[in-house]
Amino acid sequence: MSATSGRRVGLWLIGAFGGVATMITVGLAAMAKGLRDRTALVSERPAFGHLNRPEPADLVVGGHEIRAGSLMRSAEEFRAISGVLDRELLMACSEELAAATSRVRPGTIRNAGATIARLADWAPDEERLPLAAVLDRLTADIDAFAARERLDHVVVLNVSSTEPPLSAKEFPPTWDRLNASLASADPPRLPPSSLYALAAFRSGHSYINFTPSLGASFPAAYQLAEAQGALHAGKDGKTGETLMKTVLAPMFVHRNLKVLSWVGHNIFGNRDALVLDDPENKAAKVGSKDQVVHQILGYRPTTLVTIENIPDMGDWKTAWDHIHFQGFLGTPMTLQFIWQGCDSLLAAPLAIDLVRLADVAKQRNETGLIRAFAPFFKSPEGMEDNDFFRQTALLEQWAQKGPRTT
Amino acid sequence: MSATSGRRVGLWLIGAFGGVATMITVGLAAMAKGLRDRTALVSERPAFGHLNRPEPADLVVGGHEIRAGSLMRSAEEFRAISGVLDRELLMACSEELAAATSRVRPGTIRNAGATIARLADWAPDEERLPLAAVLDRLTADIDAFAARERLDHVVVLNVSSTEPPLSAKEFPPTWDRLNASLASADPPRLPPSSLYALAAFRSGHSYINFTPSLGASFPAAYQLAEAQGALHAGKDGKTGETLMKTVLAPMFVHRNLKVLSWVGHNIFGNRDALVLDDPENKAAKVGSKDQVVHQILGYRPTTLVTIENIPDMGDWKTAWDHIHFQGFLGTPMTLQFIWQGCDSLLAAPLAIDLVRLADVAKQRNETGLIRAFAPFFKSPEGMEDNDFFRQTALLEQWAQKGPRTT
Amino acid sequence: MSATSGRRVGLWLIGAFGGVATMITVGLAAMAKGLRDRTALVSERPAFGHLNRPEPADLVVGGHEIRAGSLMRSAEEFRAISGVLDRELLMACSEELAAATSRVRPGTIRNAGATIARLADWAPDEERLPLAAVLDRLTADIDAFAARERLDHVVVLNVSSTEPPLSAKEFPPTWDRLNASLASADPPRLPPSSLYALAAFRSGHSYINFTPSLGASFPAAYQLAEAQGALHAGKDGKTGETLMKTVLAPMFVHRNLKVLSWVGHNIFGNRDALVLDDPENKAAKVGSKDQVVHQILGYRPTTLVTIENIPDMGDWKTAWDHIHFQGFLGTPMTLQFIWQGCDSLLAAPLAIDLVRLADVAKQRNETGLIRAFAPFFKSPEGMEDNDFFRQTALLEQWAQKGPRTT
Amino acid sequence: MSATSGRRVGLWLIGAFGGVATMITVGLAAMAKGLRDRTALVSERPAFGHLNRPEPADLVVGGHEIRAGSLMRSAEEFRAISGVLDRELLMACSEELAAATSRVRPGTIRNAGATIARLADWAPDEERLPLAAVLDRLTADIDAFAARERLDHVVVLNVSSTEPPLSAKEFPPTWDRLNASLASADPPRLPPSSLYALAAFRSGHSYINFTPSLGASFPAAYQLAEAQGALHAGKDGKTGETLMKTVLAPMFVHRNLKVLSWVGHNIFGNRDALVLDDPENKAAKVGSKDQVVHQILGYRPTTLVTIENIPDMGDWKTAWDHIHFQGFLGTPMTLQFIWQGCDSLLAAPLAIDLVRLADVAKQRNETGLIRAFAPFFKSPEGMEDNDFFRQTALLEQWAQKGPRTT
Repeated sequence: MSATSGRRVGLWLIGAFGGVATMITVGLAAMAKGLRDRTALVSERPAFGHLNRPEPADLVVGGHEIRAGSLMRSAEEFRAISGVLDRELLMACSEELAAATSRVRPGTIRNAGATIARLADWAPDEERLPLAAVLDRLTADIDAFAARERLDHVVVLNVSSTEPPLSAKEFPPTWDRLNASLASADPPRLPPSSLYALAAFRSGHSYINFTPSLGASFPAAYQLAEAQGALHAGKDGKTGETLMKTVLAPMFVHRNLKVLSWVGHNIFGNRDALVLDDPENKAAKVGSKDQVVHQILGYRPTTLVTIENIPDMGDWKTAWDHIHFQGFLGTPMTLQFIWQGCDSLLAAPLAIDLVRLADVAKQRNETGLIRAFAPFFKSPEGMEDNDFFRQTALLEQWAQKGPRTT
Repeated sequence: MSATSGRRVGLWLIGAFGGVATMITVGLAAMAKGLRDRTALVSERPAFGHLNRPEPADLVVGGHEIRAGSLMRSAEEFRAISGVLDRELLMACSEELAAATSRVRPGTIRNAGATIARLADWAPDEERLPLAAVLDRLTADIDAFAARERLDHVVVLNVSSTEPPLSAKEFPPTWDRLNASLASADPPRLPPSSLYALAAFRSGHSYINFTPSLGASFPAAYQLAEAQGALHAGKDGKTGETLMKTVLAPMFVHRNLKVLSWVGHNIFGNRDALVLDDPENKAAKVGSKDQVVHQILGYRPTTLVTIENIPDMGDWKTAWDHIHFQGFLGTPMTLQFIWQGCDSLLAAPLAIDLVRLADVAKQRNETGLIRAFAPFFKSPEGMEDNDFFRQTALLEQWAQKGPRTT
Repeated sequence: MSATSGRRVGLWLIGAFGGVATMITVGLAAMAKGLRDRTALVSERPAFGHLNRPEPADLVVGGHEIRAGSLMRSAEEFRAISGVLDRELLMACSEELAAATSRVRPGTIRNAGATIARLADWAPDEERLPLAAVLDRLTADIDAFAARERLDHVVVLNVSSTEPPLSAKEFPPTWDRLNASLASADPPRLPPSSLYALAAFRSGHSYINFTPSLGASFPAAYQLAEAQGALHAGKDGKTGETLMKTVLAPMFVHRNLKVLSWVGHNIFGNRDALVLDDPENKAAKVGSKDQVVHQILGYRPTTLVTIENIPDMGDWKTAWDHIHFQGFLGTPMTLQFIWQGCDSLLAAPLAIDLVRLADVAKQRNETGLIRAFAPFFKSPEGMEDNDFFRQTALLEQWAQKGPRTT
Repeated sequence: MSATSGRRVGLWLIGAFGGVATMITVGLAAMAKGLRDRTALVSERPAFGHLNRPEPADLVVGGHEIRAGSLMRSAEEFRAISGVLDRELLMACSEELAAATSRVRPGTIRNAGATIARLADWAPDEERLPLAAVLDRLTADIDAFAARERLDHVVVLNVSSTEPPLSAKEFPPTWDRLNASLASADPPRLPPSSLYALAAFRSGHSYINFTPSLGASFPAAYQLAEAQGALHAGKDGKTGETLMKTVLAPMFVHRNLKVLSWVGHNIFGNRDALVLDDPENKAAKVGSKDQVVHQILGYRPTTLVTIENIPDMGDWKTAWDHIHFQGFLGTPMTLQFIWQGCDSLLAAPLAIDLVRLADVAKQRNETGLIRAFAPFFKSPEGMEDNDFFRQTALLEQWAQKGPRTT
């Protein structure tokens, strides 16, 4: 492991005191100090060994957040509820956590929906400002971070709570028309995830959406990114149960076994779960988790996905999946799995991978949507295929050759 | 479904009244009559649609067996113990089962080991015959089948009980020297699975080993097959728990998650289980099931595999696997799965696939070992790679282009 | 097993062509003919050996039903979907099934709710009749059955679909007042389960409620039963997941382990499941399944119960329960169970037990509510205690001595 | 919680630096300081509220051990491997751990078997001493503890590794004859667990065997205990999978469901597991775990129990049990459970309960075997009944009334 890549890359976290952001920041510090190894970092696999990946010490963390707090407080809370991480480790990283905390700015709850707004105690009241003013503030925060820290590249990473689902169709289809509407009295109801994306793109920063929220997934944002040479990818990190689905469904395909039903029940108790208690916010998540089975199989067995908030489970996402399938001569058989993973610690390394590989793309002068990041996402943008192994082959091919130009 | 491929292919089953053989024969009849669909046949997938695959009605079943009985009796027994298959279906197929039964000849227990020999009540006493005489008898049986049924191609398929493990090193390394030794007073202790393989190869028939027994897996047999233009493949059909291992282990690799231990417990109660109660016979099976995890991961976590005979389970192979792995920052997490499959009904369609695809290879004038059949086997011959998805890509490439000639 | 108890007992099934009713009727015939043993009959345990229990051949089956059909058709359908029962067995019992079918009368959907009404194709349109007339018709059906078959005792057993929950408070609190209201223009909205109960009680027949529907659980019905010397018990048969809860929760109590959360997910696909797809009908069921944990533990951990209709599962009720508990020194631990039971075949023997034991109570001249039947029910009437082992002790004590007279 | 019972009770741990002993000592200190609550202490349940139970602060810990070390070192090791307990908690208890460590004396490996002896680095070489001399040393250690700490009562508690199974029949049947033989040149091969028991009894101390080792379970030891007025109980603490068996098996009995097979696989990785890797030591454990099912059911389904050492699991005992049972009309159904418990933290509170309740017995002047402690043990001495709920009723009755005198 080289000490440095020669790059200085900013990691701007949306939801900077949340579980995933906290694990990212603790993890980067722990790896930079050599206190923990690189297990769970995909970008450390041999297939990516030839790339000039920014090292943990090369990443500078800042971000937006709507709840007052600090990374150390979040880390301690995480430790208490979920029973992972040592206090010793946190103590050893306290300086880095404090530095990152000092770079966090108040976020926005404009158009965030009631459930998320209720959690906010640090976001300014921007309900009556022109949307353009809100956007300007967010852009200014990120630009100031880039300048102050003398960064080669900033990646804005959305790891905040899931917003209610939204149709991209209601927004003006070009950046020019969208931009013009922002100062109007009745601007489009762009959710925070999209405001951060636009804020990033306006200055040419990269944007990665690790959540199922809208983010950059609408035409005007694509257009702006392309125009500014900004990179983006998404959406919804594939950490546990859905990863399993995209690994197992191809097996049923290749064996020509007919899936009759696929039922998945998820329980966990972190802040994400709390937000998902709101049926609106949950709808976005469940949709993202549910469609992969149909897409891979190519037909529609009965499917059911639930996600329930069970507070005592903390970050321990436990999923039980029951797959009822038909074998030879019509014989029904069953596969069940139980996944017990610490969700934020599954998400954090993938988020770090995305930032490192996005910086490789930046060094290669790629722009716009990076399709090859598909294996990291439940709903990969620009990709129909959810088969994890075909996605992985695509990513490795990208690492080898750069993006396909066809 | 075309009515016929224009081929007439013999399927000579070793262990012809066993569970897998019975399900193969019932399945072929049921599909030929249109009573059951093609679910679970890999060879029916679109990737194989362009090949001239023999149809169920094109396959003629015969075989060797060491226990007196009939396919109908086996099928009824199977139904009673495992609770699958309708009596109606069996009645509808009774003519085909009787015809196949009439083509079954007594097998051999020469060098089969005590546990298997104890099950035999139909095999002649050939302990003191020259081994060459035993081999001649087996060859004559198969050749007579080919002639009487006017077959284009005979595939000898080993679906008999697992033999104790054997080292191939103790046999003469060339066919000439082995052949010479067969008439000697102290011939090499070739197990039945290998005698059937040699019997097949001598007349240019194909041989597929669906079990972990030695079969054709030694140099002199390879040499004979090549010399006679015979096809072969093996070994040990990958039906359930091991299939899952070769699907899931790559996921841990691609996510760079570190497997700490992989424990798999299997229970079932068919005749195969009974034979595996003998520790010698079991050793061969467990070895085959256990090595795939190490090979795919590239390191050696603690692994444990048990297979236990629980008579009331019948053919319902239930496996519980517990995978303990380390995620980011050293956090231990767990994945468990429970597989409840009817083993013979998982094996039968794969065996039919192998016969159909072997006939495609025959039509293409391939000879010797078919490496591309790897995804069907726990211990694929001529292949180091147990990753199910890479194996599948290889098979599909073979289907498209024929074998790689490099 | 004596051939007969000397009793002739009528079993009048509400929902006579449903899964449970079908399994009861098939089971009684199969046992009467000696084709199946008494496994799963609680009343066959030694603790009940001294009682004069009606034998299977002593029970005469009839009932009410709202869907046209026959017991044979239901049995065949059950066999096809759920893969249990032999056609041979059904053929052997065909005469009994036909005889019972001939004794089934059209039921009522008066006040049944839209979801149940939608299933009905055999119930007369009684929406505008005086409620008294509906009740008279039902009573007449049962009385005619009793007379025609010369029965010593009729037990009306509700095994029909779950009705939406209802408060007993809206009904007149005495039988006199309720009776008076039945002929009025705006009669109380008594659901079918309660109409059948009143129909039974009016003629002194027994009534057992194997569902969570209201049935006889309101003061005026109690009063009528007592006045007529009728027996009753309920409610909601405890067959699978809830049985497990009332077995395991006491373990946590006795070990002083603190349950943090108890999550139970149930999937199955029979007609009951279909009706439970209606949130109103489901509410009754979930409430009944959920309260037992709180009651036994004496405090309120987070609990969650879901019941989902997955059609391909047929009668195979599969439940996954995840129990998160705190052990010594605050350490969180986990117990999970997976129950795979054929629901109607779990319910049927318990229903038969209730009829047999109710007849014992009748022979002993008991009247009114039988509290000792608690271990058979999810929501035992007249009993606060859901601890399965204390309930069982109570039942055995009742068998020994008759009801407690304190 | 009263501060004190007025009693001063010694707890002499055999295996004093082992996992259970460490958790006992940490737990007593943590409770005495009010840092942790009484969850998991059976003796804190209301049924025992009227008894004068020694409080955590009333218990003084000492013991024998064959490995050099300290309780703090064991606690840190436990924390590191199993991921439970806070370092803060250990720091807060460091004084108590040091004090208890100072009271630990070297144990004996005389007749312990090779596997246990291999772990020892602190036990004196006593192979050639007269057995009487070994016994004298052990007695002197315990008596010195009692005197130095001015104890009202000493309870010797065996929580050391499982010894190979032994037949009690080979020892002289009376204490006089056994005692006489101890000084002989060829003394009986009493294992350490029995030597500690005799050492305790000779001075009237109590002895509780939390392991399946022989301990006090032979006639001469019983005789000595009775003669000296010493109390004893055993054996093999019922902590997890076996507890579940004795809870669930009665359910199958009461529902008259026929268990066809009960398979239980246990994996864990603590020192106990290491010792159980020796087939001889394992035999004792498996026997104790296996017999309960047969005893409760009253017939003999197929049973299988495995316990395997998987080092990375640490103290997390994970058990998968698969119960195949027959319901009504011969229908096979399945119950599976997965138990994930931290074994030493399940054992420690039960061990503390036994000491507290043994002291209650002492205050009541009971002597000899305490049968009422049955619910704590896998193989309860003097009790045929393994039904957990009947055992619990017996214990509560004892708490209420003292031992039955019939």
